[in-house]
Amino acid sequence: MKQIQVLGAMVAIATTLASATLLMAADNGYDSTQIFGGKLPDGYRDWKLISVAHEEGKLNDIRAILGNDIAVKAYREGKLPLPDGAIIARLAWAYGPSDVNNKAFGRTQSFVPGAPTNVQFMVKNSRAYASTGGWGFVQFENGKPDHIDVQACFACHTPVKDRDYVFTHYSP
Amino acid sequence: MKQIQVLGAMVAIATTLASATLLMAADNGYDSTQIFGGKLPDGYRDWKLISVAHEEGKLNDIRAILGNDIAVKAYREGKLPLPDGAIIARLAWAYGPSDVNNKAFGRTQSFVPGAPTNVQFMVKNSRAYASTGGWGFVQFENGKPDHIDVQACFACHTPVKDRDYVFTHYSP
Repeated sequence: MKQIQVLGAMVAIATTLASATLLMAADNGYDSTQIFGGKLPDGYRDWKLISVAHEEGKLNDIRAILGNDIAVKAYREGKLPLPDGAIIARLAWAYGPSDVNNKAFGRTQSFVPGAPTNVQFMVKNSRAYASTGGWGFVQFENGKPDHIDVQACFACHTPVKDRDYVFTHYSP
Repeated sequence: MKQIQVLGAMVAIATTLASATLLMAADNGYDSTQIFGGKLPDGYRDWKLISVAHEEGKLNDIRAILGNDIAVKAYREGKLPLPDGAIIARLAWAYGPSDVNNKAFGRTQSFVPGAPTNVQFMVKNSRAYASTGGWGFVQFENGKPDHIDVQACFACHTPVKDRDYVFTHYSP
């Protein structure tokens, strides 16, 4: 009877450890889908503009990078690394020509956003996201969080480690 | 003596009329350089994002279109024509590849803003700017108003008269 109890306890401990390990492996130390409770943060579409960009190739999008007040203040003051609480939002839309604009201009020159693709956020919390440069990464599509490979996000941002892992510069 | 006084008065009236006519001809009914008193409006860089775009060709820029609260509210509610008081700001920057981003991505795909080119505003005041579809047009370069041909602005926007002369759609 005692042997069965010990065996049971050992199985329970092993199961717990295995679950914890799986969890760690799945979310790289945090669950990216649960940033903001898995919901788009209130009012992010009202945030101030940091900059814009166009990505060719497979992405083929045009994008705007917005920041919450903490992020924009730090950007404008040229302060890197960005402080805890800074959040950067990258909105992107399908990229294509505008027939209406081009007709008005008399030539093919105008490219505009179409349907939204996804919205990505970088959330600065140097303690919570210490293993990924202090940044939490999360992506939303159609208002719902996507499962993303946070380590892949972090790896892609690592070449700009000296800029606090942030690609975007402020456009005045 | 009386004749000289009458002549003097006539000259004065004629001079005033000539000046007024010249002023009307020069500014198409309003002085575009004097919108906002010839100064960039306070806080326009904090305005909310309406959309983004890329213009090829001679312009070769990437741009963000921001709106004051009146403009953004009307846009979000899908209300056209935009109400009096609406202001749309078009910021633009030189367009070019980002070597840093492309190195990180391993391919040439990333285009980002460089130096700012100019900032244009459309100001809705259906009475003051009745002759140009209710819109006043003004352009700033390096923080100072440019002399622009307002009738040329208006002519270019006329193909989108059914959209209240506004090219930009709202990007959610």
